[in-house]
Amino acid sequence: MKIICTKENLKKGLFMVSRVVGNNNPLQVLNNILLKTDQGRVKLSSTNLEIGVNTWVGGKVDKEGALTVPARLMNEYINNLPSEKVTLESLDNSTLVLESENYHTNIKGLPHEDFPLIPSIAEEAFAKIDGTELKNALSETVWASAQNETQPEISGVFMAFEKDSLRIAATDRYRLAERTVKLLGPVEQEKEVILPARTIAELYKILGAGKGEVEIYFSESQALFKFDETELISRLIDGQYPDYRQIIPKSFKTEVEVPREELMHALKAASLFVPDSNNITLEVKPGAGITVTASSMAAGENTTQIKAKVTGEENGAVFNFRYLLDCLNNLAVTTVRLKMINDASPAAVVPEGRDNYTYIVMPIKL
Amino acid sequence: MKIICTKENLKKGLFMVSRVVGNNNPLQVLNNILLKTDQGRVKLSSTNLEIGVNTWVGGKVDKEGALTVPARLMNEYINNLPSEKVTLESLDNSTLVLESENYHTNIKGLPHEDFPLIPSIAEEAFAKIDGTELKNALSETVWASAQNETQPEISGVFMAFEKDSLRIAATDRYRLAERTVKLLGPVEQEKEVILPARTIAELYKILGAGKGEVEIYFSESQALFKFDETELISRLIDGQYPDYRQIIPKSFKTEVEVPREELMHALKAASLFVPDSNNITLEVKPGAGITVTASSMAAGENTTQIKAKVTGEENGAVFNFRYLLDCLNNLAVTTVRLKMINDASPAAVVPEGRDNYTYIVMPIKL
Repeated sequence: MKIICTKENLKKGLFMVSRVVGNNNPLQVLNNILLKTDQGRVKLSSTNLEIGVNTWVGGKVDKEGALTVPARLMNEYINNLPSEKVTLESLDNSTLVLESENYHTNIKGLPHEDFPLIPSIAEEAFAKIDGTELKNALSETVWASAQNETQPEISGVFMAFEKDSLRIAATDRYRLAERTVKLLGPVEQEKEVILPARTIAELYKILGAGKGEVEIYFSESQALFKFDETELISRLIDGQYPDYRQIIPKSFKTEVEVPREELMHALKAASLFVPDSNNITLEVKPGAGITVTASSMAAGENTTQIKAKVTGEENGAVFNFRYLLDCLNNLAVTTVRLKMINDASPAAVVPEGRDNYTYIVMPIKL
Repeated sequence: MKIICTKENLKKGLFMVSRVVGNNNPLQVLNNILLKTDQGRVKLSSTNLEIGVNTWVGGKVDKEGALTVPARLMNEYINNLPSEKVTLESLDNSTLVLESENYHTNIKGLPHEDFPLIPSIAEEAFAKIDGTELKNALSETVWASAQNETQPEISGVFMAFEKDSLRIAATDRYRLAERTVKLLGPVEQEKEVILPARTIAELYKILGAGKGEVEIYFSESQALFKFDETELISRLIDGQYPDYRQIIPKSFKTEVEVPREELMHALKAASLFVPDSNNITLEVKPGAGITVTASSMAAGENTTQIKAKVTGEENGAVFNFRYLLDCLNNLAVTTVRLKMINDASPAAVVPEGRDNYTYIVMPIKL
């Protein structure tokens, strides 16, 4: 293998593939990335056996070939390099020789035959979606999934493809975030999948690199997301996602329009006074607004009043302030609408003026 | 106590005093800051029994008094507050009532009588120095002190006041940084002190808040730095600072003028190839320049050539790359001069065109 490549191209490619690679995996080749010539370009690949990433960058291929090198070392070396151009040449199938102005370097690698095969999905794209739209939808939902994997289904993110829309949901059984986003065309058949949280986090970062269209492919047990020059391949989580739609209330007794940032400030102030629990009280009164209160023996007490437009009944409940802040932090809107039934039924937060997002949170029963 | 204060003033004061306070000290009052009315202003104080900080901010004093409150809670509460003005009132000597638009809060505190006395030094200033000058001098030296406290003297920073200059030194016995800086006037008598690294770190942050003059006071066992509206009081380290000047060579056999950033890039590249040691080799040849090399069985090898003006003999030595990078990272100059004798004698790094700074580093004997 012999390639001449710009530092910028290599850096971009390494940035895409490096995150999924480990650093201390006892199986050395899993700490490595695969460099491979591919039809006049350079293909970089990485895998942690659950997620694989392929990306292609431009370069001048002088001699075909492939080799694996430690991801972290390669990344740090290229990032530090002051020069513009680098020649990459494989030596005896396990050493990468890098030559650039003033810098002469050999990096110990492993033969490309040792690198695990990343499965590819050859069929046609199942669905297409705008990258920015998908990224925004993910940012409003994924943090709501369960943090531990004792229940693998809800540790992941649910995606349902229905006609020309994608419905994304995440829940840990105490709260739920659901967002729908338009596809660029209708799907031929409906499909429901659960993707690992790690995959979604990686997808989110890949989508951050630019604008464009995302193509989504499926095989029986895997999904592939293709964006720009990068492919992300992941296993799917096996299992039945909970039928969460049944817990979303059809109607509410109280609705409040409230400035998102004011509510956030009030919740943060309250949170300082509940060092041993996360429980804050939220009371809503027509004609007045929202009152947030919190107190503890150790810290003291805090009451904050927020003027807000309340319709319906007087209401109140105790909430985990973190569950409310998670949602408010990630909703890029000025005003949210809080909907309540009573102190024991699910409450909802929706962005004012949008009907593609619902957040459900259970009150704390004291 | 009753004070009306702006959020900005309180925030500024809390920023100054909060860093030295603990959060989990079993002696609760040491997690607190002292609020006190003082001649029409608000005085905030904190201490960890080794370092004390006093700062004064403007406010409207309606009723004299004092009270202590948890530093972290107070800081987070004030930082989160959206309003401009806050009324602070003490209730029954152990509760602080904070009132601002929409926010009504009681913070549990402790009586001011429980707060440790921060000693004050009433004499005249021993020395005066420009704050920015002092800050720059500290940034070029303090990181060279010993990281553990088995030898308390060298865990601190040495300051020698001599006529109209201050000489600052830090060493861990393998490397040494020395900087002199002009005082704003001559001192009446010479004086040598050792200050704890923690004190210097705190002083550095306080100096970061603006421009102005620093007044330095001493008692037998303590130092006080006064800058703007803030006082930092610290114990001195007892002991004899090593007579480090004797190890600074009087003359060298080789001198190299080298662009600082180029040398940094070369050292960083080399550092990637010595994962199990910090040893890199530096060779200097008249007519050529500097060659930096590193290699290891596991990672591979790297050689970088830097064009540089060399005067004197061909030379070479093995160095801990971290010791060289520490110095280069903190010297804000374009060109440095590297001076060597041989592979077993101290080498020096000085900023080109300045004679107020010397860095000495010992080569590694293999």
